Amino acid sequence: MTQKIITAALVIIGDEILSGRTKDENLNFLAVGLAEIGVNLKEVRVVIDGEEEIVEAVNALRKKYDYVFTSGGVGPTHDDITSAAIAKAFDDEYLVNEEAKAILENYYGHGNLNEARLKMAFMPSKATLIENEINAASGFKIENVFVLAGIPKIFRIMFEGAKKDLQGGAKTKMQEIKITLTESVIAKDFANLQQKYPKIIMGSYPGEGTTSLVFRGTDYETLEKSANEMISILKNLQSDCVLAVVKS
Amino acid sequence: MTQKIITAALVIIGDEILSGRTKDENLNFLAVGLAEIGVNLKEVRVVIDGEEEIVEAVNALRKKYDYVFTSGGVGPTHDDITSAAIAKAFDDEYLVNEEAKAILENYYGHGNLNEARLKMAFMPSKATLIENEINAASGFKIENVFVLAGIPKIFRIMFEGAKKDLQGGAKTKMQEIKITLTESVIAKDFANLQQKYPKIIMGSYPGEGTTSLVFRGTDYETLEKSANEMISILKNLQSDCVLAVVKS
Repeated sequence: MTQKIITAALVIIGDEILSGRTKDENLNFLAVGLAEIGVNLKEVRVVIDGEEEIVEAVNALRKKYDYVFTSGGVGPTHDDITSAAIAKAFDDEYLVNEEAKAILENYYGHGNLNEARLKMAFMPSKATLIENEINAASGFKIENVFVLAGIPKIFRIMFEGAKKDLQGGAKTKMQEIKITLTESVIAKDFANLQQKYPKIIMGSYPGEGTTSLVFRGTDYETLEKSANEMISILKNLQSDCVLAVVKS
Repeated sequence: MTQKIITAALVIIGDEILSGRTKDENLNFLAVGLAEIGVNLKEVRVVIDGEEEIVEAVNALRKKYDYVFTSGGVGPTHDDITSAAIAKAFDDEYLVNEEAKAILENYYGHGNLNEARLKMAFMPSKATLIENEINAASGFKIENVFVLAGIPKIFRIMFEGAKKDLQGGAKTKMQEIKITLTESVIAKDFANLQQKYPKIIMGSYPGEGTTSLVFRGTDYETLEKSANEMISILKNLQSDCVLAVVKS
């Protein structure tokens, strides 16, 4: 039985990334985390903290991919506009989620829930909470969109919570052949092999004096076969050119 | 005299980024490098190594921003499809650039320019070369789009070459106030200040037991004034809450 290919996109709400002040850490974490459960990250957009920009990116991506994740802009300050923008993207009301409010009240203690803190309980009316263990603020899910915090530590914990709602598909496996030859020497054979096995994604990445040929696919038998064929071709070109083969 | 605001976007052609195999290093480098010359990075897209995806991203962004940079997919192997995709995006012919071919011939030595190596000289007919010192392959420019290599070391060198063709505008300066107070305590005053000074972009970023209030703008006098006003407000809230003020 062939499993479905499940896809995802990420929208990073990221004035601080775009200004160069902060380096993003969530993209790679999400890419690896999704791959592990059989979801393919297919597109990422980094946009400014602007309502129009967030609405446009989320609406473009949620129609195109099975899941969309957002990162950032869910705190208590005026520049945290993601939740309101998501409500707008879904043409939904933006109001207090009583469950989120109860969590915040419990966290800060009764009577300490000021206006700024309460802001973190505002969500689209159709949102359901994503639980997380360390923080008072809740991420949420609306249809296929998962709204997570930008701080890497909290993003990771919220993603763990979000996983319960994700349906994984066919897992992509990888074989990496590290060689001493340069790309231009193997390019023709590599292209022919790609033509022969169109279902396997074959990429070449030059390093410092080495080249990595990466085979990826969900048909594991063909993956193994095509990589082995490349290894034979390489050894014929130069018997000692293969430095390592890594399977993951 | 007020300087113009100049904007830019980046398209990362990135199967290897989206699969989680590689961590991108070009976004932050470009963000910082552009800021230094008065260009604001406003959007980034990471797309798969697919013609349709590259064409769509480049065409959407080149109309919206002053400059577009692309990163990756310009090598000699079959998965390097960026240059062909850019030709398609501009509805231009994709053919050998004689200047790029001469550089490659000189680099590899006469008679050693095989088919794969020659592929690196194929560009849109209207492209002009971006020089670089370490590599035989050339990045290129077509209208407001700059096509650079994905390998960080080469991306950086090509960006140095591209700079000659960039017209910088008003430089954004930044003041960062690091405090011991949590976001929710300062949120209301901070929002009021943002309303008072709409031209300054004010963002709040929580850290480990600290909060960073970041002020950014091209009107340096108002930037200084608004940041100083926030410092006064903060010291009134709690005299020793300001840990540091960083100007850049």
